[in-house]
Amino acid sequence: MKITTPTLLLDKEKAVRNISRMVDKAKRNRVRLRPHFKTHQSAQVGGWFRAFGVEAITVSSVRMARYFANHGWSDIMIAFPANVLEIDGINELASRIKLHLVAVNQDTVTALAQQLRHPVQLSLKIDTGYRRTGILATNYAELDAIMQKIREQDKLQFAGFVVHDGHTYKQTDADAIQTIFNTSAYQLRLLRERYKSKFPNLQLSVGDTPSCSIIETLHGVDEIRPGNFVFYDLTQQRIGSCSFDNIAVCMACPVVAKHPDRHEIILYGGSVHFSKDVILQEDATTIYGRVVELTEKGWSAPLKGIGVTSLSQEHGVVKATPEQFAKYSIGDLMGVLPVHSCLTANLMQGYLTTEGEVLEHMTGLPQRELTS
Amino acid sequence: MKITTPTLLLDKEKAVRNISRMVDKAKRNRVRLRPHFKTHQSAQVGGWFRAFGVEAITVSSVRMARYFANHGWSDIMIAFPANVLEIDGINELASRIKLHLVAVNQDTVTALAQQLRHPVQLSLKIDTGYRRTGILATNYAELDAIMQKIREQDKLQFAGFVVHDGHTYKQTDADAIQTIFNTSAYQLRLLRERYKSKFPNLQLSVGDTPSCSIIETLHGVDEIRPGNFVFYDLTQQRIGSCSFDNIAVCMACPVVAKHPDRHEIILYGGSVHFSKDVILQEDATTIYGRVVELTEKGWSAPLKGIGVTSLSQEHGVVKATPEQFAKYSIGDLMGVLPVHSCLTANLMQGYLTTEGEVLEHMTGLPQRELTS
Repeated sequence: MKITTPTLLLDKEKAVRNISRMVDKAKRNRVRLRPHFKTHQSAQVGGWFRAFGVEAITVSSVRMARYFANHGWSDIMIAFPANVLEIDGINELASRIKLHLVAVNQDTVTALAQQLRHPVQLSLKIDTGYRRTGILATNYAELDAIMQKIREQDKLQFAGFVVHDGHTYKQTDADAIQTIFNTSAYQLRLLRERYKSKFPNLQLSVGDTPSCSIIETLHGVDEIRPGNFVFYDLTQQRIGSCSFDNIAVCMACPVVAKHPDRHEIILYGGSVHFSKDVILQEDATTIYGRVVELTEKGWSAPLKGIGVTSLSQEHGVVKATPEQFAKYSIGDLMGVLPVHSCLTANLMQGYLTTEGEVLEHMTGLPQRELTS
Repeated sequence: MKITTPTLLLDKEKAVRNISRMVDKAKRNRVRLRPHFKTHQSAQVGGWFRAFGVEAITVSSVRMARYFANHGWSDIMIAFPANVLEIDGINELASRIKLHLVAVNQDTVTALAQQLRHPVQLSLKIDTGYRRTGILATNYAELDAIMQKIREQDKLQFAGFVVHDGHTYKQTDADAIQTIFNTSAYQLRLLRERYKSKFPNLQLSVGDTPSCSIIETLHGVDEIRPGNFVFYDLTQQRIGSCSFDNIAVCMACPVVAKHPDRHEIILYGGSVHFSKDVILQEDATTIYGRVVELTEKGWSAPLKGIGVTSLSQEHGVVKATPEQFAKYSIGDLMGVLPVHSCLTANLMQGYLTTEGEVLEHMTGLPQRELTS
């Protein structure tokens, strides 16, 4: 198949190896792997997980839950503070799958209790240090009150506590990530102790790809919910979660202009394809993508002396050494490893595998509902 | 229509006023308005321009040109370095509309000349200071050679010189923008003088929304190609291109969590909805969106003491004063003016007008082609 426009290539072998490695780690640690499917948002990629025996998944919206439910997934957590405005969609899903919701506030619990028509699993989102959202792990007054409220509602089945340690994304040191994980696991275990008499089966669930990738012994939790690991990307490589060779997606972008005076190459490939994510490097320069050589079966390791230094809406600017600059001609395709694979996939709306198969992405399906 | 998920509202009256103002300015200055449709990518919004007599448009991809050609537009410039890999799509379009292409390099001209089956208009992209792409306006050796090459090809009809002064986006001072415009217009007029004996009808075309919005007297050019002005956004307000009241799009986002300890509100609305564009303010804080009050017919001016301070994939974090914080409840909708309307519309894939009409966006149509 001839590539003529910016295209997201997917190396299925690498992705399957990434899945296999996480499945093995979960088994070894006796934790449930409930992978986050917002990274790929693809029924076909979901099928690769199913082949490993994965049965429970995580998504980030009601729409995504509906998409995967329609593709045969029957145990789905929407790991986002429940949006009570979507109660109709929630009720429809709860009528046919094991649906897990997440709450942060008592008002959400009250609204759900009033409007749910079918039982759902409900977890509380705990903040163990990220400070984006969640109940602070030490806020016992709030926790006692909200859990009492949950106990009183027959449609709400308390499942446990969920954490997303997004602050691991700011680290590049394995010890720092281990410390974040230990701190979260410790706080979660204290919560289990506090509430286990009333909720003996409560589950502890953690989520981020850096922790799940870097830490070998995932003690003290029941479930892990990483997502990005299926593809990885330059951000995860920089954190230390993966090597360049684990990155399973790569953009192929047409070369549309060359500037010999400053050794810059213009790609057809901008922020509407990659997203605007950027890596700030130690030398204070920024990277929007690393250039690789496209091969018959995939792509090479990142090349030295060439990289994507800026993006505008459709343009990518590549700065190169004179030697690298000379290798590219107008009409060539250049391979670029993305900074953030989730957002790139979300924008690209589909994949082309290195075996030539086109895979769908949920955002490429007919008109996303504006309203539901 | 009940809004339950992040939704891009569009105030048609404001957009039509923005169009009307630019149409009047173009008429007053006797320049052709060839608006850039990449901002809205919507057949219906295109129709609003047509009602003002606009006949020539600008787009940024072959796919977008095909979309608007299929909606009756017959004079379309693809203002992006011609992607010779898409020659089949270019030939198909050139067979049925007046198609304008843009080139930066001789190799592009050669490839087009060899593969075109129908005549196209060809402009050269000139760099008058932005330094993203284009032939430097003083590079006569290159210009002489490439224009000689164009003259020798019967399928390539030389149209003139196009400039995009993207560096106006970094300014917040009207005089600086005037100086950029004057510098570009001056360089373009020198080019016209140099080549007018061989190309007596060559046209000078400039593009950016800040110049076209701020400058009243657009002397010395033949055509303007602004795009963003149809909606405007916080970036343009900060530059000085518009007032808050001119911004014609607004996100409506569900409130999904509240943090009374730090007066932060969590919105369902993240970088997959807004894009990651940000405004760095004079006090070194960053803004991802300004909060407005949603009203029956639209929205208010930006509120004081509340704003979107960070975005992750689906979460928006809003920081508020205690007074503003107290006004919002779980399940409310919050209005947010976007930082960059083009990218927000690209992600949202559609619009809901304040009159209740759903309008399409090209990215929301069935599966974007991975390859063509």
